Amino acid sequence: MAASFFAGVFAMAVNLYIPPESEIHAVPGIEIGIAEAGIRKADRKDLTVFQLAPGTLVAGVFTQNRFRAAPVQVCESHLMAEPEIRALVVNTGNANAGTGDSGLQASQDTCKALASLLGLNSQQILPFSTGVILEPLPVDRLIAALPQAIASSKADNWFEAAHAIMTTDTLPKIVSRRMELGGKTVTITGISKGAGMIRPNMATMLGYLGTDAGIGPALLKDMTRAIANRSFNRITVDGDTSTNDSFIIMATGQSGLNIDSSKDPHFAALFDALADAAAELARKIVRDAEGATKFMTIQVEQAKDTDEALKVAYAVAQSPLVKTAFYASDPNLGRILAAIGYAGIADLEVSSVNLWLGDVLVASNGQRHPQYQEEDGQRVMKEAEITVRIALGRGDVAETVYTCDFSHEYVSINADYRS
Amino acid sequence: MAASFFAGVFAMAVNLYIPPESEIHAVPGIEIGIAEAGIRKADRKDLTVFQLAPGTLVAGVFTQNRFRAAPVQVCESHLMAEPEIRALVVNTGNANAGTGDSGLQASQDTCKALASLLGLNSQQILPFSTGVILEPLPVDRLIAALPQAIASSKADNWFEAAHAIMTTDTLPKIVSRRMELGGKTVTITGISKGAGMIRPNMATMLGYLGTDAGIGPALLKDMTRAIANRSFNRITVDGDTSTNDSFIIMATGQSGLNIDSSKDPHFAALFDALADAAAELARKIVRDAEGATKFMTIQVEQAKDTDEALKVAYAVAQSPLVKTAFYASDPNLGRILAAIGYAGIADLEVSSVNLWLGDVLVASNGQRHPQYQEEDGQRVMKEAEITVRIALGRGDVAETVYTCDFSHEYVSINADYRS
Repeated sequence: MAASFFAGVFAMAVNLYIPPESEIHAVPGIEIGIAEAGIRKADRKDLTVFQLAPGTLVAGVFTQNRFRAAPVQVCESHLMAEPEIRALVVNTGNANAGTGDSGLQASQDTCKALASLLGLNSQQILPFSTGVILEPLPVDRLIAALPQAIASSKADNWFEAAHAIMTTDTLPKIVSRRMELGGKTVTITGISKGAGMIRPNMATMLGYLGTDAGIGPALLKDMTRAIANRSFNRITVDGDTSTNDSFIIMATGQSGLNIDSSKDPHFAALFDALADAAAELARKIVRDAEGATKFMTIQVEQAKDTDEALKVAYAVAQSPLVKTAFYASDPNLGRILAAIGYAGIADLEVSSVNLWLGDVLVASNGQRHPQYQEEDGQRVMKEAEITVRIALGRGDVAETVYTCDFSHEYVSINADYRS
Repeated sequence: MAASFFAGVFAMAVNLYIPPESEIHAVPGIEIGIAEAGIRKADRKDLTVFQLAPGTLVAGVFTQNRFRAAPVQVCESHLMAEPEIRALVVNTGNANAGTGDSGLQASQDTCKALASLLGLNSQQILPFSTGVILEPLPVDRLIAALPQAIASSKADNWFEAAHAIMTTDTLPKIVSRRMELGGKTVTITGISKGAGMIRPNMATMLGYLGTDAGIGPALLKDMTRAIANRSFNRITVDGDTSTNDSFIIMATGQSGLNIDSSKDPHFAALFDALADAAAELARKIVRDAEGATKFMTIQVEQAKDTDEALKVAYAVAQSPLVKTAFYASDPNLGRILAAIGYAGIADLEVSSVNLWLGDVLVASNGQRHPQYQEEDGQRVMKEAEITVRIALGRGDVAETVYTCDFSHEYVSINADYRS
């Protein structure tokens, strides 16, 4: 797990790039501390505390699962009530979901304890939990470890934090960028975690993006939502939307660049950089998905609207039959047509549908393309990264969803997760 | 595969009952012939021809997948045009789906060839195909084997037909009943096939139910639809709706009992007997589902309407995380709550939700039940047949869906299916 071991290489999973420490930039205004609280297992870094400089603005989007975990509910209420969030506290090993009033109390007690240690009010804290659902959070152990986390706080702890928020993840997920904008040097660094129970419906398990750009509160809220819809809301591993999905952007303003409106001449560049970083974090989750051996990009084009493009993309991306065929590198592409057909577009004319596997035209006008050769499909299927392109012939809307294959290892991991 | 070997035992799969030949009753008015056409593999019975006596009425329901296979399209048009269907022809090994106009031509040529052999017109034939999608049907080999199928035709071939329509099924699926109704002896016998690509949306891969009751054409149509909604439309293996789902009821009238209206005093008994036989055929598909080690009944109660009850039942039944936990006999029941939460009921109050595993109350008021003990959940999880009961606290509608677990074997089967 030493940083140097993985530094700057494409490691395990499917082409997951782990930058060397020299490429990971601290974000002025953000410090991170880490501790071993023993939430679920001993000798495991499982507690992370972000401290944010005064003036930092924070926005977040959260799961649409009706069984929203207690910390998600507390986050939403604190973001509503308090304009200046000053710290985040993240535990792994327990999701604090399906835990009712005592779970809410545990999240609130966590915030209260951290607020008292940092001289804040407890609404200035956002709590996050990830791990097993339906079991009580060992809040006493969590609170007891907070001083250790605060004592270890420093600006260049992002790489360690990327490790400390992992659960079934095999590798840390981190992106870092630096750019010149309006004469200022702006930094963007972020981390994410998640490998199973992934079909974000607002955001993924956990994603944190920090920047020292200053962004006005209303604009930051809009940007966070728009960025989630271009990144974490476009991935799926198993179609299971988690109870704890949370995606957070923290803008400290310490670069000197301040943007309050989408009409600002630097808005587009900043938005694109943040969206690009978020999309990379999201794709890293798919690359390290439970049991993944392939990274698949599902592009749907010529749809009438976003809704139907996403219906088709997710039907293909979540079909167990499509995913097992990709695992086997078997171009059993009729399964893709079947998924397009049941995706829920009632008036789909299948004779307008074209399907490409990589650069190979597999089906045209809804049937096997006359020139399609099995060996061409086979060649593409052997790759670790595969693009499936589907043209519906109905309109001009396009959407892209990222997913992975479905392997024996996925079953093993999820049959053994709690043991 | 000899009948006597499996006769009258609960064989492989999950408690799939195979009746002895003495319990399988021929249906007066229906004869069945079988042949080896070599559609996909040699030395395999892959062609089945049902011949129906004059006066038999036939109704069917078919897949809602937009990539409806060619034979499904031909079936629908023949049922519309021709009041007297006289034969069914079923091939395995190739689905004739995603095959465009040449696929339609192949289905029509099959009907024409069989019609000419039997002295019928080709619209009196219904064709069915099941197997790999997106590959051309070897229609010449199919047609060449029709005389062999006709030559072997006899009334007591149901058990052989249940074998001949299998693809990845490991066991034949057959039910047979005899009852006294209105002073007549009425027989109901049926077969089905299917093990993967199973989330019927009208009917399942293939299901055929024959009876010698006489049923009026309008009534038979309504009954077929209603029975599909109580049987094949309530099962899922992997959420993949097939391109070839077809469910057929054939009513020969040769028992002397004739029912033309739902007000007939014997209607309810006949409907229940047919629906019960269809439901048993549907559940047999789940019991023999690809890789299944558990048979799970998902009961959702206290819903506001059928739609939301089914949303919750299917979300739970299709969650890969729920299914792998059941495979492992691990009562990781938070995964069930998560699935209920993302099922799509926007105003679900989770504090009203109760969840039972077998007879064990696991979660009450949306959280872990105070008296719930992991060992009680563990005890139920070890069973081969498990009922998950979910009370939503919103209304009085209940629905039941049948499914199975998700095993290494499912991945193996679907990674290897075409090789």
